[in-house]
Amino acid sequence: MRQLFITLLTCVTAWVAAPALGADAPPVPYPKGYRQWTHVKSMVIQPGHALYDSFGGIHHLYANKLAEKGYASGKFPDGAVIAFDLLTEVSADNAVQEGPRKVLGVMVKDSRRYKDTGGWGFEGFKADSTTERAVGSQAATACYQCHTAQKDKDYVFSSMRK
Amino acid sequence: MRQLFITLLTCVTAWVAAPALGADAPPVPYPKGYRQWTHVKSMVIQPGHALYDSFGGIHHLYANKLAEKGYASGKFPDGAVIAFDLLTEVSADNAVQEGPRKVLGVMVKDSRRYKDTGGWGFEGFKADSTTERAVGSQAATACYQCHTAQKDKDYVFSSMRK
Repeated sequence: MRQLFITLLTCVTAWVAAPALGADAPPVPYPKGYRQWTHVKSMVIQPGHALYDSFGGIHHLYANKLAEKGYASGKFPDGAVIAFDLLTEVSADNAVQEGPRKVLGVMVKDSRRYKDTGGWGFEGFKADSTTERAVGSQAATACYQCHTAQKDKDYVFSSMRK
Repeated sequence: MRQLFITLLTCVTAWVAAPALGADAPPVPYPKGYRQWTHVKSMVIQPGHALYDSFGGIHHLYANKLAEKGYASGKFPDGAVIAFDLLTEVSADNAVQEGPRKVLGVMVKDSRRYKDTGGWGFEGFKADSTTERAVGSQAATACYQCHTAQKDKDYVFSSMRK
């Protein structure tokens, strides 16, 4: 009985905490104009890769001016935005070309608003939509949890290619 | 004898024309700051592809502001510059990552200076060098000859990805 109580208490606490986190963290805005931002680096993740289900395809990372400063210094200032542009990979005839967009991932730095997730807000916009969200209130588990491994790099995996 | 004369005449004409073309066309400058320009599109050319010897690897195209207008309108104004950034492709564990730079190709539009090659100056800068040139006075045969196939697109192969 005591064990059941503790389990229930844990569940309720988690249940209460989750919406609170979602309510506290305001929605990440669509990164308008990101295609004119600085291209950070690219990578192709192919079938068979451990991350293929989530990130399979060709991805390009883009940084706004404040994020460029973060890549240079290792500490991203508030207002820094990183866009993760994931496109379908079209492999044929010994070449890989860019196909339709799968999702546009976004990280926006605001140390106050997103204090519970390392100062970063996370979102994903489905395909070419500027409104259809893939992450929403699930940022803590869907994004931040993996990014904590990069705490020493201010939670960012990528580096600016020369 | 007549045939020999014609052959010689053709050779001499070509010989005279080639240095003249080189002398008339001023060197294409290194595209300083191109890593902050707009990313146009990317592609991976793998071993076995017909163009692998020349263009094998991951390439990214970048456009300065005037070249962006050219991609939008189909006609590139003087001052438009396109950078073709060719990196070694590092394929391992079902992923393709960016390796060292192989060459940085450049097209610069100047309808007067480069009138003999479609209004475009062509150059390639070896690896990370800003001075070591791969094309020089060979632009007509090494670059322009293939680009004439794209005359209807103002000699440009790429299109701006959305």
